[in-house]
Amino acid sequence: MEWTFKLELKRKPKLDNPVLIEGLPGIGNVGKIAADYIIEKLKMKKLYTIHSHHLPHSVFVNENNLIEMPKLEVYYKRNQDPKKRDLLILSGDTQPIDEASCYSFCHKMLQIVSEYNCNEVITLGGIGLKELPEKPQIYISGTSKEIVDKYKTKKTNDKLFGHVGPIIGVTGILLAISKLRKKEAITILGETFAHPMHHGIFAAKEILTFLNKKFKLNINFKHIDEDIKEMEEQLKIVDELEMVNSGERDLEKINYIG
Amino acid sequence: MEWTFKLELKRKPKLDNPVLIEGLPGIGNVGKIAADYIIEKLKMKKLYTIHSHHLPHSVFVNENNLIEMPKLEVYYKRNQDPKKRDLLILSGDTQPIDEASCYSFCHKMLQIVSEYNCNEVITLGGIGLKELPEKPQIYISGTSKEIVDKYKTKKTNDKLFGHVGPIIGVTGILLAISKLRKKEAITILGETFAHPMHHGIFAAKEILTFLNKKFKLNINFKHIDEDIKEMEEQLKIVDELEMVNSGERDLEKINYIG
Amino acid sequence: MEWTFKLELKRKPKLDNPVLIEGLPGIGNVGKIAADYIIEKLKMKKLYTIHSHHLPHSVFVNENNLIEMPKLEVYYKRNQDPKKRDLLILSGDTQPIDEASCYSFCHKMLQIVSEYNCNEVITLGGIGLKELPEKPQIYISGTSKEIVDKYKTKKTNDKLFGHVGPIIGVTGILLAISKLRKKEAITILGETFAHPMHHGIFAAKEILTFLNKKFKLNINFKHIDEDIKEMEEQLKIVDELEMVNSGERDLEKINYIG
Amino acid sequence: MEWTFKLELKRKPKLDNPVLIEGLPGIGNVGKIAADYIIEKLKMKKLYTIHSHHLPHSVFVNENNLIEMPKLEVYYKRNQDPKKRDLLILSGDTQPIDEASCYSFCHKMLQIVSEYNCNEVITLGGIGLKELPEKPQIYISGTSKEIVDKYKTKKTNDKLFGHVGPIIGVTGILLAISKLRKKEAITILGETFAHPMHHGIFAAKEILTFLNKKFKLNINFKHIDEDIKEMEEQLKIVDELEMVNSGERDLEKINYIG
Repeated sequence: MEWTFKLELKRKPKLDNPVLIEGLPGIGNVGKIAADYIIEKLKMKKLYTIHSHHLPHSVFVNENNLIEMPKLEVYYKRNQDPKKRDLLILSGDTQPIDEASCYSFCHKMLQIVSEYNCNEVITLGGIGLKELPEKPQIYISGTSKEIVDKYKTKKTNDKLFGHVGPIIGVTGILLAISKLRKKEAITILGETFAHPMHHGIFAAKEILTFLNKKFKLNINFKHIDEDIKEMEEQLKIVDELEMVNSGERDLEKINYIG
Repeated sequence: MEWTFKLELKRKPKLDNPVLIEGLPGIGNVGKIAADYIIEKLKMKKLYTIHSHHLPHSVFVNENNLIEMPKLEVYYKRNQDPKKRDLLILSGDTQPIDEASCYSFCHKMLQIVSEYNCNEVITLGGIGLKELPEKPQIYISGTSKEIVDKYKTKKTNDKLFGHVGPIIGVTGILLAISKLRKKEAITILGETFAHPMHHGIFAAKEILTFLNKKFKLNINFKHIDEDIKEMEEQLKIVDELEMVNSGERDLEKINYIG
Repeated sequence: MEWTFKLELKRKPKLDNPVLIEGLPGIGNVGKIAADYIIEKLKMKKLYTIHSHHLPHSVFVNENNLIEMPKLEVYYKRNQDPKKRDLLILSGDTQPIDEASCYSFCHKMLQIVSEYNCNEVITLGGIGLKELPEKPQIYISGTSKEIVDKYKTKKTNDKLFGHVGPIIGVTGILLAISKLRKKEAITILGETFAHPMHHGIFAAKEILTFLNKKFKLNINFKHIDEDIKEMEEQLKIVDELEMVNSGERDLEKINYIG
Repeated sequence: MEWTFKLELKRKPKLDNPVLIEGLPGIGNVGKIAADYIIEKLKMKKLYTIHSHHLPHSVFVNENNLIEMPKLEVYYKRNQDPKKRDLLILSGDTQPIDEASCYSFCHKMLQIVSEYNCNEVITLGGIGLKELPEKPQIYISGTSKEIVDKYKTKKTNDKLFGHVGPIIGVTGILLAISKLRKKEAITILGETFAHPMHHGIFAAKEILTFLNKKFKLNINFKHIDEDIKEMEEQLKIVDELEMVNSGERDLEKINYIG
């Protein structure tokens, strides 16, 4: 079972030239925080649940005290307003476990969105700095000069060369496979603090502001600071658990008991 | 050779709506200790021996000084008494070696128990705390509110959210695949000390008490403290060996000698 | 290309109930040192060279300054003398790289020796102690009480239980797969010092003495101490190289240069 | 998708007995620096771009601020002058990710160059010393005495035995597979400082001098010192980025966020 895309609707919706935005876990979880915020605020509908043998072999307990298995999800929003684009968002709480499965997932993902006539892809992520940036900048790069020019603004710095190392995982490879499949793609990366326990909420806010304007999302940022505070507290709980259970993570290394 | 289930009987026994209990190695070996204790006390019969290329590539020497290869085993017990459930127990001294093989094993395992009309699964494990708990609590979670309500008691705490990180390996993924295959499943986790050399015998005792009552196992706990003491001494021997031979475990890292 | 056994002769020799002895790298290289010594002293002939994609992805430079690729080899010796057994020895400078390839190699290896009517297997290895043993003991274990009784002597201790942890790699799994394939197998393990830079030459000498007697190899041990000294010096050169080049071993971890 | 060789020309050029030179990342990047220098100075044409699921799952941002995916490349140069050999160079910014993919790539690579009647292979690499060598020597080894004799000069030391450990990755395995496929192959290794942040530019210069003479490349070394200085500064930028983003490299180890 390489990648199973389970359709969550009775029939596939018709979308008009949608853009795919990716926000999976990564440095500071910048991309995931931004993507999840949009899904919630726009009340986007779930289109696919994605399972695979190439996701982590672990489950977690959700707020309802029930078991959740590792999965990726695709949400969508159709917009009647001709000024607004239809949206697809790839979200999730994990990434494919290794190189080959990251590549195979990105191929499958782009094959699926092709069915919805999606030809533009935006991946979101963080740039890890040695110190917490006072005013995190956002950077843009992409698969062609044309797509970068289309999306860049005064606030997006396009001098990423010399400022970022390799972009790892789906955030990077989705760009690469887009190019191979003749789709246009950009990545928007926000500066954050390169510490495993730091959550890149301020970087995510900068990215949200950019997307809000570009796609006329009409997200009301009035409550974003409260929302961010709430998010931070939830994430702290998770961090503490991760630390306590760090022994359990190495199960596979102590998996033979005579 | 993905997963070979070798039937240890001439013909498959007929079981009446059995429950499958899993107890493989994990944090504090809580689940394994509990499962093995039931198998011994109820004199359960071996149904399957399971081999695979996706188990550790090592053997150990047993009490009779003979070689044992890594394996998983399924035991069963049929109960004529209509008040008691038929039982299947998955036991073993190891876990599948990686993500993909953990998923493929859980799929195969649930396919096999479907032949015996088994529709309920219970996995057992430990919750690693920073300190040795004075009175280890047991927690319950599951694939649906209904199955959790069916099994929870006054003594099982069902507020696992915020108290446990990811549940790794077969103990976690068997729950996930149960849900995908429309079976009900719960996990019972006992608090223990998160140290690689600590054996979660007290947590196992709490889980055993729970299972003894729920399934009317009629296990006489009079001798359990002696049994536990004996178990602890056996486990100490294994620990010491593990330490002495820790160099050998890294064989694969020094496997080229010119 | 899973496992390629390249026959090194024009036609397969006929062997009479040969025993297969395995001596691959492992703790202290005890097994490899013993096996290579027999091959050299008995002037055994090469039967197979074994290549695979599942051996290390590195080559080394031999004494003639030419490139050697990682390989395993099978040597044989036919004995006209009815008092002596025909011999097969599996030797090499490496082991299969992971769990699945270790299992698949052992299956293939035993399938190949079946063509020569080989039904007994002896694997050789080391037991790592915390200190250098003054008089290294040798231990025996096996797949059945019968085969252990057949081979044990006054000098082989058969109380391995509680003295050794898991036996890893081909030395262990060849025993396990022998049992699955209804062949008899034993392992002879010599005590040595569990330090990555220590060579178990004394343990190897004890194993050689045992095999010399059991199989009437007629190896003259008069020069063994000189031979051992020479071996030790050669091995020291290799150790030093390993240390200098340890950076290069992590190539795959730094394999992306922008 | 094991290995995809994308032809970058409308039709395959006819080459006359070309030699294949490999220069991929490795210790001190000695081989890569030398190969890239030749490609640039001789203005060689790109023949193939090679993609695979078995390359790192990351992209980087190039000087034009656009996304580049991991790839290997083959360049060629045809020479009308009968005194000069036709050339093929394998270059790239990465290596196959594991053992099996390294072997499969080398097989595919040699199958491809066979179509161009290429029967000689030269791999380039570094020998890591504990200290920075004052005058780095270059060493030669190969698949046969004949090919080593053909290429060795007064300046190439052919006493590699005892001076180098295993040669890892494509630089090593391409030699091994050449031998299996009845092609002749040598490796030229230059001494460098075994530190992960050191770039083996001086070693590369020695190798370039050797190749320049052997193949009458007519590379003008007048500006090589300036070129080297420029190269060093570019590489320093990359190093600093690698350090800042080292957290991001471990993404796969923190890839489950509940």
